[in-house]
Amino acid sequence: MTHAEDSDQMAAVQPNDVEDTLAPLLNPGSVAIIGASDNPARIGGRPLRYMRDAGFNGRIYPVNPNRESVQEIPAFATIAEVPEPVDTAIIAVPARAVVDTAEACAAANVKAAIIFSAGFAEMSDDGRRRQDALAAIARTTPMRIVGPNCLGVYNSATGFFGTFTSTIEAGRPTPGRVGLVSQSGAYGSHLSLIATLRGIGIRFWVTTGNECDVDVAETIGWLARHPDISVIVAYAEGVCDRDRLFASLALARARGKPVIFQKVGRTDVGAAAARTHTAALAGTDAVYDGVFRQYGVHRARDTEEMLDVAYAATFGTFPASRRVGLMTISGGVGVQMADEAVERGLEVTPMSAAAQARLKTLLPYASPRNPVDITAQAFNDLTLVTTNLDVMLAEGTYDAIVAFFTFVAAAKAMVGPISETFREAKRRHPNCLLIMSIVGPPDIVRRYEEAGCPVFEDPARAVRVVDALSRFSEAFARHTPPVALTAPAP
Amino acid sequence: MTHAEDSDQMAAVQPNDVEDTLAPLLNPGSVAIIGASDNPARIGGRPLRYMRDAGFNGRIYPVNPNRESVQEIPAFATIAEVPEPVDTAIIAVPARAVVDTAEACAAANVKAAIIFSAGFAEMSDDGRRRQDALAAIARTTPMRIVGPNCLGVYNSATGFFGTFTSTIEAGRPTPGRVGLVSQSGAYGSHLSLIATLRGIGIRFWVTTGNECDVDVAETIGWLARHPDISVIVAYAEGVCDRDRLFASLALARARGKPVIFQKVGRTDVGAAAARTHTAALAGTDAVYDGVFRQYGVHRARDTEEMLDVAYAATFGTFPASRRVGLMTISGGVGVQMADEAVERGLEVTPMSAAAQARLKTLLPYASPRNPVDITAQAFNDLTLVTTNLDVMLAEGTYDAIVAFFTFVAAAKAMVGPISETFREAKRRHPNCLLIMSIVGPPDIVRRYEEAGCPVFEDPARAVRVVDALSRFSEAFARHTPPVALTAPAP
Repeated sequence: MTHAEDSDQMAAVQPNDVEDTLAPLLNPGSVAIIGASDNPARIGGRPLRYMRDAGFNGRIYPVNPNRESVQEIPAFATIAEVPEPVDTAIIAVPARAVVDTAEACAAANVKAAIIFSAGFAEMSDDGRRRQDALAAIARTTPMRIVGPNCLGVYNSATGFFGTFTSTIEAGRPTPGRVGLVSQSGAYGSHLSLIATLRGIGIRFWVTTGNECDVDVAETIGWLARHPDISVIVAYAEGVCDRDRLFASLALARARGKPVIFQKVGRTDVGAAAARTHTAALAGTDAVYDGVFRQYGVHRARDTEEMLDVAYAATFGTFPASRRVGLMTISGGVGVQMADEAVERGLEVTPMSAAAQARLKTLLPYASPRNPVDITAQAFNDLTLVTTNLDVMLAEGTYDAIVAFFTFVAAAKAMVGPISETFREAKRRHPNCLLIMSIVGPPDIVRRYEEAGCPVFEDPARAVRVVDALSRFSEAFARHTPPVALTAPAP
Repeated sequence: MTHAEDSDQMAAVQPNDVEDTLAPLLNPGSVAIIGASDNPARIGGRPLRYMRDAGFNGRIYPVNPNRESVQEIPAFATIAEVPEPVDTAIIAVPARAVVDTAEACAAANVKAAIIFSAGFAEMSDDGRRRQDALAAIARTTPMRIVGPNCLGVYNSATGFFGTFTSTIEAGRPTPGRVGLVSQSGAYGSHLSLIATLRGIGIRFWVTTGNECDVDVAETIGWLARHPDISVIVAYAEGVCDRDRLFASLALARARGKPVIFQKVGRTDVGAAAARTHTAALAGTDAVYDGVFRQYGVHRARDTEEMLDVAYAATFGTFPASRRVGLMTISGGVGVQMADEAVERGLEVTPMSAAAQARLKTLLPYASPRNPVDITAQAFNDLTLVTTNLDVMLAEGTYDAIVAFFTFVAAAKAMVGPISETFREAKRRHPNCLLIMSIVGPPDIVRRYEEAGCPVFEDPARAVRVVDALSRFSEAFARHTPPVALTAPAP
């Protein structure tokens, strides 16, 4: 099942006002930067530089009472003097000036504010009071607020980098079908960088920090509704609005969009650390386990697992059963993959006797049961790859096949024919997840990805992903009555 | 505890004849290649090419009755005509000719034979009989035999590449302190390649295949005795000689050499696949678990875990306790690392009140308990890194510290001072394992490794390695009475 777009069902769960209030934040036509710095290395200077470097297609208004221009763009003394009510204002001023600045933004009809500044509820009682004042502004005016104590947001498709995370300098994100929301700014930045280095395209990236208004739960719902997003990645230390989380997860599931969620603070020590970090209450961990299971969310333990599943999910094939076929050029890896699959509850169903007999005539010393060991001989006779794959697919048994080729499939002479074999197989069996385990440079890996196959260096990680994606399929298939989405705090 | 070298104890467990019979195999002065091919791409042509490319420092004798020379080296018609009794003969002839060839080798006083050919016990009853004949030669003559159905061996320090694995072409192994033995040739090749790409130096590499004579168990013992090896990595589908395995594992432990073992065939499906692969009997899995626990072996599930632990172990610091300090520039990652550590049974002991107070004065909004969150501010004031690390080490509580710096520590201006801080810390606290979690290119990672710190991109993987290395320390510390080493099959 892929990306269901049942618009009737969506109408029932999605009040338009929710979508409208976050759209200016994540797709702004105009951006003000309050506390804009002429120094492109400073926190107040970076968003301007990143947006210009990325060719942001909207209007930018630096606000700085001490300068005529900032980084060669005319500056304004106050937000009130900016010639239009901007979609998004970035607030990069000292903590004590933040509340006044936010009030001025609301008065200037700014639609959304992103507050970088730290020093609120995570630090002191005084900070808690100032954060409450910000929450009151968000509640009593139409202006939405992200933060405080966050690293901002980006939309990689428009070049809107409303963030000061220097990860952007280590590798600019590329647009893709993944939306990412993280309570932690630094960890969200780390995730963004690792995703970018792995070639995973993050379209929308939101760090929510102390969550005086916009939170992880609401953002998941917004991403679930966005037509360009098909995979949602979330990190949180605590979730306050339980109903909003449930509604967003239900919506994502109804739309066939997998949610991969890392909820930390599983242990007492971790939960205590979370309290001092984003002032989050981690809550009872078993409750989260239950919620995630109910809504078909994949709970990830770490960065690698999170991005493995997200990456594979972007290919859009979720196996309809847990039956997996294993093809290998190394018998040893076949055994390893079989162990991993069985221990994860996947079914390593044997091939039919007829199919086994057919493969045995092709390669007498191969092992055709499942795992299907085609041995390195397959690379002296590439028709063995094609025929073995055809026979496995013709069985009609497997909704996923993992093929281990290590570095051999990255050899120049092999890439063309093997990727063509898999492209053709994918064309004829679009609902079968075909994952390849290959060691090779990024350009070679890309060739196999373009054929429709996720690629993993490690065969065990490839098998784990089959487990994760088949569980999404089970969750999407469950009957899901429309759920009323709780509106954001009025 | 690092690399104990108690020679008295060793004398008790190590009959010299065992060492002697494998030394010519792995450090040969002369090598014959029977079935040598002039085509450097063929199985019989590759070892010659690999050895010449790597500058093998011994004498090479191609054996081929149809050619005067092979790859420009004078050839001999038979092994009997080779002008000296060679240390190692590589046998790359059709399966049916293998037994006669092996007999001729033994008659020519060859000290060890490596048999590439497949088609023995893994294939048929006839193959089983031919394999028994090989075993008989090994038993009744001084000649040792590796294989059949193996990919050979290498010694990366001398350029002896007695193998046809084409992984050598994807990245030539570099000498290091790791010894690797794998029953599976293709998986052993995959491991060798991944290790090489990760910068892990494998000195000796042995694939044992059908194990008619030399097996994984004996090789572990040989590696445990070798002075240049400090970490042993093993892969097996089944182990036949239980006593030999026990003796080898006891020896490795007595010498303070960690063994990382991947034993597959954990499940019924996996065990069945193992039978058709190397004809191995996987045995009851729980027995292996018990044996590994008893001898302090780290049982790894997959390639990544295996090489993570091996890599970190090469740094030679095994934490004497399970108390770990966590330093981070991301509060979110601090929470994640704390969860991972606690769930693995590590102790995330809080800092003393005095130490916390001291750090709090340095950085009021930091969180100094443990995890110690120094925030990104540390990179505007690098003395914060130094002071925080000093204070954590001065506590005397932690035998391991994991420091998460993501890509920030890879920035040009940061590498020098941060690596110097850690080098100095390591100098003053050599028994404390300092692991860094950094995202950066290989040359930057190398700088931190040279300071004495293993580097992991993923902080969760870094924490898991602390668990693994502290368990080795516990195993090494246990009282271990000398164990009589069972001699190889007489």
